[in-house]
Amino acid sequence: MIIVMRPDAGEQAVQKVVEKLKKNGYQIHESRGVEKILIGAVGEKSDNVNMAIEALDGVEKVIPILAPYKLAGREFHREDTVIRVGELTIGGPQLQVMAGPCAVESREQLLEIAFMVKESGAKILRGGAYKPRTSPYAFQGMEEKGLEYLAEAREKTGLSIVTEVMDTRKVELVAQYADILQIGARNMQNFPLLKEVAKAKKPVLLKRGMAATIDEWLMAAEYIMLSGNHQVILCERGIRSFDDTYSRNVLDLSAVPILKQLTHLPVIVDPSHGTGKWPLVEPMARAAVAAGVDGLIIEVHTRPGEAICDGPQSIKPERLSNIIVEIGKIAAVMGRTL
Amino acid sequence: MIIVMRPDAGEQAVQKVVEKLKKNGYQIHESRGVEKILIGAVGEKSDNVNMAIEALDGVEKVIPILAPYKLAGREFHREDTVIRVGELTIGGPQLQVMAGPCAVESREQLLEIAFMVKESGAKILRGGAYKPRTSPYAFQGMEEKGLEYLAEAREKTGLSIVTEVMDTRKVELVAQYADILQIGARNMQNFPLLKEVAKAKKPVLLKRGMAATIDEWLMAAEYIMLSGNHQVILCERGIRSFDDTYSRNVLDLSAVPILKQLTHLPVIVDPSHGTGKWPLVEPMARAAVAAGVDGLIIEVHTRPGEAICDGPQSIKPERLSNIIVEIGKIAAVMGRTL
Amino acid sequence: MIIVMRPDAGEQAVQKVVEKLKKNGYQIHESRGVEKILIGAVGEKSDNVNMAIEALDGVEKVIPILAPYKLAGREFHREDTVIRVGELTIGGPQLQVMAGPCAVESREQLLEIAFMVKESGAKILRGGAYKPRTSPYAFQGMEEKGLEYLAEAREKTGLSIVTEVMDTRKVELVAQYADILQIGARNMQNFPLLKEVAKAKKPVLLKRGMAATIDEWLMAAEYIMLSGNHQVILCERGIRSFDDTYSRNVLDLSAVPILKQLTHLPVIVDPSHGTGKWPLVEPMARAAVAAGVDGLIIEVHTRPGEAICDGPQSIKPERLSNIIVEIGKIAAVMGRTL
Amino acid sequence: MIIVMRPDAGEQAVQKVVEKLKKNGYQIHESRGVEKILIGAVGEKSDNVNMAIEALDGVEKVIPILAPYKLAGREFHREDTVIRVGELTIGGPQLQVMAGPCAVESREQLLEIAFMVKESGAKILRGGAYKPRTSPYAFQGMEEKGLEYLAEAREKTGLSIVTEVMDTRKVELVAQYADILQIGARNMQNFPLLKEVAKAKKPVLLKRGMAATIDEWLMAAEYIMLSGNHQVILCERGIRSFDDTYSRNVLDLSAVPILKQLTHLPVIVDPSHGTGKWPLVEPMARAAVAAGVDGLIIEVHTRPGEAICDGPQSIKPERLSNIIVEIGKIAAVMGRTL
Repeated sequence: MIIVMRPDAGEQAVQKVVEKLKKNGYQIHESRGVEKILIGAVGEKSDNVNMAIEALDGVEKVIPILAPYKLAGREFHREDTVIRVGELTIGGPQLQVMAGPCAVESREQLLEIAFMVKESGAKILRGGAYKPRTSPYAFQGMEEKGLEYLAEAREKTGLSIVTEVMDTRKVELVAQYADILQIGARNMQNFPLLKEVAKAKKPVLLKRGMAATIDEWLMAAEYIMLSGNHQVILCERGIRSFDDTYSRNVLDLSAVPILKQLTHLPVIVDPSHGTGKWPLVEPMARAAVAAGVDGLIIEVHTRPGEAICDGPQSIKPERLSNIIVEIGKIAAVMGRTL
Repeated sequence: MIIVMRPDAGEQAVQKVVEKLKKNGYQIHESRGVEKILIGAVGEKSDNVNMAIEALDGVEKVIPILAPYKLAGREFHREDTVIRVGELTIGGPQLQVMAGPCAVESREQLLEIAFMVKESGAKILRGGAYKPRTSPYAFQGMEEKGLEYLAEAREKTGLSIVTEVMDTRKVELVAQYADILQIGARNMQNFPLLKEVAKAKKPVLLKRGMAATIDEWLMAAEYIMLSGNHQVILCERGIRSFDDTYSRNVLDLSAVPILKQLTHLPVIVDPSHGTGKWPLVEPMARAAVAAGVDGLIIEVHTRPGEAICDGPQSIKPERLSNIIVEIGKIAAVMGRTL
Repeated sequence: MIIVMRPDAGEQAVQKVVEKLKKNGYQIHESRGVEKILIGAVGEKSDNVNMAIEALDGVEKVIPILAPYKLAGREFHREDTVIRVGELTIGGPQLQVMAGPCAVESREQLLEIAFMVKESGAKILRGGAYKPRTSPYAFQGMEEKGLEYLAEAREKTGLSIVTEVMDTRKVELVAQYADILQIGARNMQNFPLLKEVAKAKKPVLLKRGMAATIDEWLMAAEYIMLSGNHQVILCERGIRSFDDTYSRNVLDLSAVPILKQLTHLPVIVDPSHGTGKWPLVEPMARAAVAAGVDGLIIEVHTRPGEAICDGPQSIKPERLSNIIVEIGKIAAVMGRTL
Repeated sequence: MIIVMRPDAGEQAVQKVVEKLKKNGYQIHESRGVEKILIGAVGEKSDNVNMAIEALDGVEKVIPILAPYKLAGREFHREDTVIRVGELTIGGPQLQVMAGPCAVESREQLLEIAFMVKESGAKILRGGAYKPRTSPYAFQGMEEKGLEYLAEAREKTGLSIVTEVMDTRKVELVAQYADILQIGARNMQNFPLLKEVAKAKKPVLLKRGMAATIDEWLMAAEYIMLSGNHQVILCERGIRSFDDTYSRNVLDLSAVPILKQLTHLPVIVDPSHGTGKWPLVEPMARAAVAAGVDGLIIEVHTRPGEAICDGPQSIKPERLSNIIVEIGKIAAVMGRTL
């Protein structure tokens, strides 16, 4: 880390900083200029020390140098992580499409959509049994019943299942049904949940928080990994911006190549939540594949006008088939299969 | 709600929307112009219907009209809610200052700070036993031991206690020790936690999420209220912006008069997290009082340079005394006491 | 437009609004519910009336319905605008790549880069003679000398020229040299400049402001069009977000399909400014093409380490050739040529 | 500045950076750790060198250390700048209130409001003769006629005049009438205008851009100062955020104490544009004074419902009198006069 001292910091203040750093095992290199004194400190990063230094007298700012994530970072783990879900792989040459309704609404609804998802060529079924809804008056999900229907859909179609878990107390239950556990955007920094979900030993799909920086997102992955589960899939789903007139969020596709540099974990994109409007799903799905993504998660509903949630961003299953054809062509250009 | 139809929507599309609305108990008023058709729908608001309508063919957008929060809103509850914490009130004429360290670090640290907080004139002690830290390598809190020290500090000083709870499984435990349960910014939309905390029947301090709109924040309060606990204190703590060079967040003080219009719940401000820099705490505390706030929550540490967390934004106890004197003068201008 | 009255607005307030609307030529449709009164007003949109209504007693909010742009909008001009620059077209089946240095630094630098741009297959040369620099101490551009070098580069290579104009007093001069006049992000709402540039009767490349909404951007285009110049090219160049650690801006690619719905004007993307980092230029260029863009503008420098500006986001010319090959493959999938 | 090298940067890359820095007159201090090499470079700051270094091979990032503004910064100019406008001072112990209509609409309107502003105790009249409107269909201002009315109002009331200039070609004209030249938010980085306005030798009120960082804003002031005019007043007017439901912008009051640390220039606040809603003007005016501001600029209209622009955020003159009484009390607490 680098410590910049205020122009008016006295020698005593500088010495106090140096001492504290040395006590914490850092090697020190000072650079004294006309206006500023810089203290370079090389050693093991510790967040606690970092903030404590910033609070010392005379310190203008502390600039961290090392990436705060170790397990998620590519520096010590250069090859891509490939996650296995049954016979599928996520993060390998094959792109994976996850598709399904926002919420499991009924046995019939789910099975009907599941079969159409299967037919489209997608291999993973999404569907929420526990729904994080902004309003307490909105449908909160079918809960365990929904999980049972998902399991039935898997049995009948052979699709794998990804579904969200929101409560530490439900992780064990959801893990009994799901092939991939989803952490939603609102829970990206629900740290007890991250620790709990790690115990389930199933792949975790970690959505980016609505205003989470790339570093915060990778640190959330680090929580799961440090708790013993290295099977983390990162999912970009749009960030909050100043303009939501025509799209609910701004889908940050530059996060894809950035993450590919920083981390070995697979990266997928959710163009449905990322835009909130079904006409934008196809172009953004194509763009995500061209940006180098490992997969997509897409909301599908046979009757969007009757969907209990996220109707406006749900596409019809026939359109899903079309999207899969389209992105297949771009995947081919990228040297990927579908 | 108002439904705006696309210019090219046919008569059939209009009729389908009208039918669906009528089936859901809405009264309909159409306005047909040269370019657009508007459908005004008056009835009981339902989020589910709202989104389903938006997904129908020919619908350009759906504009909700009624505030989505009922219990938190001022429309049906005009007088201010005053929350009692022992002999204190929050939301009445007296402003309340909550102060203390970011984290409980040891028995000695907490007691030392608690006595100085007491002396400054503040009446509520803050201190984290469970800490939501961005890094899994950072100090995660003393947990139950920390709660015990908080209880001891209360006994010795007479201060009331506010402390954060992060996990549904810990709500009962934390509620045994705390006078006020804090929901942190990262958990504002942790809906299972909101429901669980409501059961504790203790006042809840609900911090605004880093990128939460005013409506989302009030809907989070609505979750707690609908679950049976109407004692919710709203706490503005800074929102994320494009510039964090000189302050960690942007403290949104206009939220104070806005909330005073929209809701009857008390509103407090956290100038420590709201800025992230101790020299900004005093001016922003003054400004918050001038904006009409019901209280403040401030981070204090006897040795910020050794604080395990949030040192840079922690003020020393002697400065707290000074701040309390300063805001007392502004409170007087506002017709409030301290 | 729709006027929502406050719950406590009396009959008199409603009548005053209705009268004012009628006086301005609107037809009125009222919807009276238990809690709210809605007034639907159908007529010719006027921004002035709109804001005046919102200031009347008892009015809660005014919701505009009609798109505020007429000339830029697709509603009254359904077919795509195709702009001619010499023998090139922008907005037709062929994608156009504009490439060149951030700034014209010298005759040699520009000619060297221009020939390499030519060789890569791009057909338009970019290069700044007047530079909008954040710092007054930074290089401000070679001014007219730079324009002369650009003209020479055109003559020698056959490339067309796009260059920025920042000052109303320079529009005539720059228009004598340039084939396309660029309005930079910082000047998107420099209205006198928009009006002046319209008079030049040359195509205008209008960059999106750093925090401009889609509507504001289209209204800026409307300024140029209303002043008599319909040859406007929209250029997405990244918007400001809360995270600039790994990219300078967030490139908003969903703006591309959104604009394709709303407007008939051509849309291009600037992956260099949009990310600020050269390793992100290629993946984002590919993604932009997959999102449906009509062209790209890319910063190129033979020696980025010696570039006077924007070195970190400039790619080397050999990489440009590679990018053009890569996006050519994606263009083919999209049914476009290069 | 500090240069962080990539972990895989070879010795040759390091040497190339060091050489380049030395050639530019920097002194070099290296810190070599296990994972990273840091190069501390102390010398005269140059933005050009800075960016060129970042583009060299092996460089991970360049961290600037010195504030980029010299003339605006407090480091070399510790005492507050006090600007004289006739007999008034801005930046001294007395707070100044500037008030008036958004736009000059007619002679009668302006004179009527001017007299009421005078009566309220404010000493400076605002009013736009050239209006930057989002829509080209909206009223663009009375232009020179408006300036004449402003001059007449000054003559009749003794108030000083602040009015906006948008075009380099009009600076001389506007400066003939105005006592203070206003640069609007949309033109904060209109660099030719900043240079031109500096020549007028009149105080400049520089509004913060909608998404401008503090540093960018101070650099805009630096443009004016470097061009020879040191009389710059900074005006916070709200920044763009993700939530504009209840306020048009977020008024960033923490900018006030931040600027007071960084610069010697006076700082004022515009609670009218900062919120966009008249009921928020008074509480935010109070808060601004409590935050330590040197003045306020407030939109006033005798008949907001008929105002050509900004009706919803305009207060009536009688309310202005009340606000001035209220902020006077807070000013007294702050040791300021009004």
